[in-house]
Amino acid sequence: MILTVTLNTALDITYRVPRLRPHASHRVSEVTERPGGKGINVARVLAALGHHTTVTGFAGGVTGTVVRELLADDTDRDTDTGGGRITDALVPIAGTTRRTLGVVDTASGDTTQLNETGPAVTSAEWAAFMDAYAGLLRGASAVALCGSLPPGVPVGTYAQLIREARAAGVPTLLDTSGEPLRRGVAARPDIVKPNAEELAGLTGSTEPLRAARDARRRGARAVAASLGADGLLAITAQGAWRAAPPERLAGNPTGAGDAAVAGLLSGLVDEASWPERMARAVALSAAAVRAPVAGEFDRAVYAELLDRVEVTEHPSAA
Amino acid sequence: MILTVTLNTALDITYRVPRLRPHASHRVSEVTERPGGKGINVARVLAALGHHTTVTGFAGGVTGTVVRELLADDTDRDTDTGGGRITDALVPIAGTTRRTLGVVDTASGDTTQLNETGPAVTSAEWAAFMDAYAGLLRGASAVALCGSLPPGVPVGTYAQLIREARAAGVPTLLDTSGEPLRRGVAARPDIVKPNAEELAGLTGSTEPLRAARDARRRGARAVAASLGADGLLAITAQGAWRAAPPERLAGNPTGAGDAAVAGLLSGLVDEASWPERMARAVALSAAAVRAPVAGEFDRAVYAELLDRVEVTEHPSAA
Repeated sequence: MILTVTLNTALDITYRVPRLRPHASHRVSEVTERPGGKGINVARVLAALGHHTTVTGFAGGVTGTVVRELLADDTDRDTDTGGGRITDALVPIAGTTRRTLGVVDTASGDTTQLNETGPAVTSAEWAAFMDAYAGLLRGASAVALCGSLPPGVPVGTYAQLIREARAAGVPTLLDTSGEPLRRGVAARPDIVKPNAEELAGLTGSTEPLRAARDARRRGARAVAASLGADGLLAITAQGAWRAAPPERLAGNPTGAGDAAVAGLLSGLVDEASWPERMARAVALSAAAVRAPVAGEFDRAVYAELLDRVEVTEHPSAA
Repeated sequence: MILTVTLNTALDITYRVPRLRPHASHRVSEVTERPGGKGINVARVLAALGHHTTVTGFAGGVTGTVVRELLADDTDRDTDTGGGRITDALVPIAGTTRRTLGVVDTASGDTTQLNETGPAVTSAEWAAFMDAYAGLLRGASAVALCGSLPPGVPVGTYAQLIREARAAGVPTLLDTSGEPLRRGVAARPDIVKPNAEELAGLTGSTEPLRAARDARRRGARAVAASLGADGLLAITAQGAWRAAPPERLAGNPTGAGDAAVAGLLSGLVDEASWPERMARAVALSAAAVRAPVAGEFDRAVYAELLDRVEVTEHPSAA
């Protein structure tokens, strides 16, 4: 079982309008709702790839209830179509799970994003989560720690979760930003997956190769940096590689980073080589960009791209 | 008891952001939720004025549950502070009550509005509503029919509700737009309260006095047209008047029209003269514009303005 942790779960709402005009009134032509938060998005991609996955984190209030109901619906659909099972191990909280709203202009496809902050987590709820996490690690082949921290959760939380996982012998992947990333990297996660901006924020360098090397010196055992349409750069103990999609794909980049995390994890638990892990990550990212719904991915595009991703070695970069 | 009908109830959500920029990502600094829909807004103002009020219409799904919970909280607060009681007589439906989202720029105070359409109402649900409505009319001193119609509700609905009320001897106020307004006016409501745009849509005339006269010829017994900062124009069987606030007030116009409806209804059930009804409506509108929260009104501003609203007669306009 792969475990994904989403401390700041969300109900992702998408509104479609012809064009968003500030200070005007709009009739929303279409509303969709999905369970959200990076770790939950990663779990959905993993399940679609056939991996049994457990999601944990927090859920509360009416939006928390909707998130859990939608997650159960997804799981039924995935297992019906041959996917892996998603097990809901979210810890209940008194606060209300946040909403994130994406307003899509139907003409251009551009999205305006409005993200609620999320509920405060009490110390008793945090203790309940830590108990649950320790139990879940016992059955996990890998754990992904994804996204922002809700109010009330200590900034060193990911570092603590990484140390607990290492003590349990479970490899970790960290995908966050800012101070939680800085503290988490220092706790020596197995993989850290920043984007170019997060990597620059961590290291002060806007040159990806230099910044990725710096992130390794700060503690990350491997760095897989997502560089948008340029693909992925990995610097690991086994070597350094770049992987790029065979062509630039137009579409919605929302969820592309989460799809890449799922590709890396999938390769990790399957004991695939780094070039193979990167090919999965880049092909899944590209398939997510091409999917009509943010957070989904197009399986046919994934299958077709997997062999066509170009992975090249950086002989002396590591 | 005053009855207000809100067929398209809503959960009104307000997000505050520094400034809304299309295609950017925003962190929402503050989230508020209120029960919404025009008739519910009218009921809240009536209750604050001390009138016992019953709300009916439809509510369903998780947002419908939240609307009813918030309405119960409001009622407890109002009765604690000497206000009238709001009785929840909303009819349950299978569909989910819509959300309306107002995104307020904290710098300018300007609002961007995103309104969901609302759930489809089945014919069985509509029949249940008509039964409830007939029962509620027996205890009503006036009924307000407010806002848009949800999908699945016939466009002639307000006309039907007006005829039922007249058969029960209950005076009606209609506040809607488009074809439901056109059909409703033809059913001879006691008062119709369009704004300038709705009046122009109904009559084809952008000159308010001419348009209001035309609306009376189409069936409305009295027309009270809200003209924004210019106040109110009323053409009735008893005479014609204009009422204007003593000064232009800056603030949020959301809810000003609903406050005016509450003022007109309050005056109607108190058997006040038309100039007194108009003074209440204009003072409440202005107090709503000045309130920090959309849909609330400032009681001190209302009390202070009530005597200072200028009502002037149009000797030959009716």
